[in-house]
Amino acid sequence: MINIGIIGYGYWGPKLVRNFHALENTNVKIVVDIDKKKLETLREIYPSVEISTEVNSILNDPEIDGVVIATPISQHYELAKKALLHEKNVLIEKPITDSAEKAEDLINIAKKKDRILMVDHTFVYSASVNKIKQLIATNEIGDIQYFDSTRINLGLFQHDINVIWDLAPHDISILLYLIKEKPYSVICTGISHIQNKLENIAYITLYYQSNFMAHFTSSWTSPVKIRKILIGGTNKMIVYNDLEVTEKVKVYNSGYEVILKEDLNKILVDYRIGDIHIPRIEQKEPLRNMAEDFINTIRNKVKPISDCESGLEVVSILEAASKSLKNRGKEIKL
Amino acid sequence: MINIGIIGYGYWGPKLVRNFHALENTNVKIVVDIDKKKLETLREIYPSVEISTEVNSILNDPEIDGVVIATPISQHYELAKKALLHEKNVLIEKPITDSAEKAEDLINIAKKKDRILMVDHTFVYSASVNKIKQLIATNEIGDIQYFDSTRINLGLFQHDINVIWDLAPHDISILLYLIKEKPYSVICTGISHIQNKLENIAYITLYYQSNFMAHFTSSWTSPVKIRKILIGGTNKMIVYNDLEVTEKVKVYNSGYEVILKEDLNKILVDYRIGDIHIPRIEQKEPLRNMAEDFINTIRNKVKPISDCESGLEVVSILEAASKSLKNRGKEIKL
Amino acid sequence: MINIGIIGYGYWGPKLVRNFHALENTNVKIVVDIDKKKLETLREIYPSVEISTEVNSILNDPEIDGVVIATPISQHYELAKKALLHEKNVLIEKPITDSAEKAEDLINIAKKKDRILMVDHTFVYSASVNKIKQLIATNEIGDIQYFDSTRINLGLFQHDINVIWDLAPHDISILLYLIKEKPYSVICTGISHIQNKLENIAYITLYYQSNFMAHFTSSWTSPVKIRKILIGGTNKMIVYNDLEVTEKVKVYNSGYEVILKEDLNKILVDYRIGDIHIPRIEQKEPLRNMAEDFINTIRNKVKPISDCESGLEVVSILEAASKSLKNRGKEIKL
Amino acid sequence: MINIGIIGYGYWGPKLVRNFHALENTNVKIVVDIDKKKLETLREIYPSVEISTEVNSILNDPEIDGVVIATPISQHYELAKKALLHEKNVLIEKPITDSAEKAEDLINIAKKKDRILMVDHTFVYSASVNKIKQLIATNEIGDIQYFDSTRINLGLFQHDINVIWDLAPHDISILLYLIKEKPYSVICTGISHIQNKLENIAYITLYYQSNFMAHFTSSWTSPVKIRKILIGGTNKMIVYNDLEVTEKVKVYNSGYEVILKEDLNKILVDYRIGDIHIPRIEQKEPLRNMAEDFINTIRNKVKPISDCESGLEVVSILEAASKSLKNRGKEIKL
Repeated sequence: MINIGIIGYGYWGPKLVRNFHALENTNVKIVVDIDKKKLETLREIYPSVEISTEVNSILNDPEIDGVVIATPISQHYELAKKALLHEKNVLIEKPITDSAEKAEDLINIAKKKDRILMVDHTFVYSASVNKIKQLIATNEIGDIQYFDSTRINLGLFQHDINVIWDLAPHDISILLYLIKEKPYSVICTGISHIQNKLENIAYITLYYQSNFMAHFTSSWTSPVKIRKILIGGTNKMIVYNDLEVTEKVKVYNSGYEVILKEDLNKILVDYRIGDIHIPRIEQKEPLRNMAEDFINTIRNKVKPISDCESGLEVVSILEAASKSLKNRGKEIKL
Repeated sequence: MINIGIIGYGYWGPKLVRNFHALENTNVKIVVDIDKKKLETLREIYPSVEISTEVNSILNDPEIDGVVIATPISQHYELAKKALLHEKNVLIEKPITDSAEKAEDLINIAKKKDRILMVDHTFVYSASVNKIKQLIATNEIGDIQYFDSTRINLGLFQHDINVIWDLAPHDISILLYLIKEKPYSVICTGISHIQNKLENIAYITLYYQSNFMAHFTSSWTSPVKIRKILIGGTNKMIVYNDLEVTEKVKVYNSGYEVILKEDLNKILVDYRIGDIHIPRIEQKEPLRNMAEDFINTIRNKVKPISDCESGLEVVSILEAASKSLKNRGKEIKL
Repeated sequence: MINIGIIGYGYWGPKLVRNFHALENTNVKIVVDIDKKKLETLREIYPSVEISTEVNSILNDPEIDGVVIATPISQHYELAKKALLHEKNVLIEKPITDSAEKAEDLINIAKKKDRILMVDHTFVYSASVNKIKQLIATNEIGDIQYFDSTRINLGLFQHDINVIWDLAPHDISILLYLIKEKPYSVICTGISHIQNKLENIAYITLYYQSNFMAHFTSSWTSPVKIRKILIGGTNKMIVYNDLEVTEKVKVYNSGYEVILKEDLNKILVDYRIGDIHIPRIEQKEPLRNMAEDFINTIRNKVKPISDCESGLEVVSILEAASKSLKNRGKEIKL
Repeated sequence: MINIGIIGYGYWGPKLVRNFHALENTNVKIVVDIDKKKLETLREIYPSVEISTEVNSILNDPEIDGVVIATPISQHYELAKKALLHEKNVLIEKPITDSAEKAEDLINIAKKKDRILMVDHTFVYSASVNKIKQLIATNEIGDIQYFDSTRINLGLFQHDINVIWDLAPHDISILLYLIKEKPYSVICTGISHIQNKLENIAYITLYYQSNFMAHFTSSWTSPVKIRKILIGGTNKMIVYNDLEVTEKVKVYNSGYEVILKEDLNKILVDYRIGDIHIPRIEQKEPLRNMAEDFINTIRNKVKPISDCESGLEVVSILEAASKSLKNRGKEIKL
């Protein structure tokens, strides 16, 4: 039996409790939050789970094997550090920290303490993203030429972070999971319509040394909800629409070939519009897989899929993007 | 009767012939193209229209009142200049020229010769865009906060211009038509997957002095066709999807209000998801309205809706965007 | 505190437990099922709920105020009868019974025993259906001319009832809730692709004395899931698509007017395609409202919205439709 | 050169002129209509085509090889008979006549005169329908179990025929083209909201001797336009949505298998939700193919794809359906 303590019972907390609770040989032992009301809601559904407003209830409990941190991001670092120093394995909601420096520090502590440090990049555990990864691995898509993600909707302005720290971690973690090459530089433009100057719309471009490019659109102020990623390859192209129920991943056998003539002014482009294939995607909840990975990681002392290094990479990109954003789209090398 | 001569019978030519042909008291007198085969196709449908491979057939014909230039963009300037110097009124397909300098030169010649110089920014004549203009004018939308356009699909790589000169003129001309404020600077990122280095994917950000921002996504290499503009206002938000048949313009009574607390860290955001209204939009072909405007302009010596100054503005932005694109997203002041 | 006992923990059971559990001053005291495994799943989530494989655990418990029957339909009558005779208030999942005669019998027993007998016609409690009811009540739609419902998808063949007993109760109960006039006769066609002769596709027509008509398409063997109801009025028309997230109810200001000429051969029809309005619909779970209604009904001795008389009406129509279906679409008077 | 004369220049006339005009070695020689205004519109676009208000201009012209009849259906029989008796080959817009008896008479005359008699069932010439035919022929779909077509929209009430004579010929001709077995009986329900008693909504069921069934929904009074056919097979299922631009035909690798237990009450149904495949469909206009077939038929004395026998079959079903409709859904044997 692996015992889990969860810190934070806000938006993600209930989902985490439900998913860890459902795993075999796993026990959600304690949930901590400063809001007693929320804890009472929890108690009604799961009377067997201990509740507390003190983080130490988790840290000082020798039976707790894993600590899950689902608090506002500004508290990630301090809480994770404490938990690691208490010899706990740690899972942090994305993004891992609010700076690359802090992420590096946590990674070092985790190494010294020989404990697991993992970040919840949920989409990396989704069947859709893994189907895409497989399509890329088997070269069905060909060389990948671009990655273009739109994640917009109305709502849930965060009070301590701008829109890219809130929404883009999903897309960046998917990108890093799918594409081996590391980005070379980042450009980010955007705007804040709020007095606190936190941007609610932002556009990130990632430049690469190769012929590949990535772009992310993030917004809290769109009247419509869009969760769409386009991936273009030399053989096929993919549209991943996470809002679709049965057609999340569509593979287009479409493309073009450039036919070289004597000189570059006489390039001929040959288009190909082909069949579309929509693979059946298993409907398992990604968060369930993520929870399983954390438990498996603790039990078998193996590396998690969404490891702390990918957490650091995401934060490094977000940090550079924020710097670019504050400097009206200045290119920041990574 | 107004007599029209059309130069260029490629992609737009047949549409122009059809639309001018349908107007009352308007005569498509001559069509010129270097490709005899294309002209023969024309003759089969419209035996009464003269055909020629010589531009002079139009320029030297004293009966021709208006010349329509629908050639590759690199020829716009020379042809328009000649036509104006031959005392003709001139309509040019978008974009008006391939540089701001040339556009300015044409404007000056047109003034001296007292002839109409007009550019075909077709969307400015669409019922959808005019419905949006009206919604903005009556303040139903409130203060406009952002404009975000996506115009992507597979195909039709141009050989002499990159994707922003091909696709973005549509979006920029719509933006300029709707929003009075002029942009302050432009940032453009993108990539070319073709040997001739012409970019096939590009992202443009327009910064403004005020609280407004515009962004354009242009691509020739998307497996799916998207023609979507989001416009956010303080009261309502608009989604303009040009591919929809009966629901092109959707008005969302959605938004948010920021409630100021004592300090900025305690901002409260209040969301509002409201009704959606889809106004009935007349289905008249925009190109028909554009053709009518040109004829009306010639006949009544009035200013066209899509005038040469807006043509110049579009080209100035494209030029700056191209410069930014070549310099990896460097901010270019306008 | 109202104490509830639930019989049957199959497909609906867990939803019922969750919704009754969430109500204030309501206690899900006992859940009965013959399948011990299912009950153990329940116990894991709600350790406080008693579980039993014996119906008598509920019937003989004097603290139980309301009994919810969520078993296969063939057991509805016997169980409900027993519960009523044990002086319990009774809620039965739709359809109330497998024959009109049995439904009448239950209604009589409930009257004698002065207990509530209610059927769960869930959609009658949905915000969408109630928005439509309101649009009709305020005469915004005009005189209603037709009701056309399609409820199809792949799956969940029932073993003891055909597709109309499974799917059509939803649509028929919505129809009866919206339209006061009673149907005059029914015609039902369909087919069974299964050896047990239970039809998996069926089409029901309801004829009325007036100028109104209703039609239902029910299928377990469609590759796509459709949940769509069209309602035509003399002023406006409604499309209710239950699979839409934010656009469930669309109101079309479209219609036609018939202009009488001297004789009937010279009828002129004038079409009107107008604006579309999509009212904001509250997203509360209908089953929650239904559960609330049952509790409120018990507590305040009032009539439920989805009362036993509507349960009888639905079953009478299903019975007639089945008779028609067995006789290749013979018209059956109601 | 094949010379064509077209009678009727209303809704279909212009499409027919355009398509026949575009064919090689084909000449649209004369177009007849009683409405001079319409003919003048024609003359503006095609000055080379002769126009006339007299049918005899076509019938008496010895150069005319083929006569196309695109008039209201009530005139089909008389005009076609005259044309055949004048030794012309004849193409009639669907439906071929307004009664089976008249269709049989025309077929006999055509045989005697050894002339082509063809009906324009346009969809039989569409790439989508032919792709489906091929999927059935190669047994990819398995045994076909049902055909369910919905063809509804707002508008274009016909003054002389009800909705099934207007819309259902499309669907019935597609069905007959795809499925070899002949229907056994027909049941049709519906309603008229117009004083002339012509039904504007109707539902047709076709019963077969085998395990197959077809259903058609036809309406002139739907706020939304739907053109959707579901075809279920034992292996795969097809959704043909004619309003889709790039995804007209979707093939679902979905289905179910019935596992026999000892007795029929213990049937087990095993569902399969699989991949979806969307074949690339050529975008050629079906009417072009139809026109080509008529010309080819005249030139090479071969049987057309959409022959007069299929025209008769469609009319026989329509006639029986109308009879059923007038008798409140009485089953009519075919």
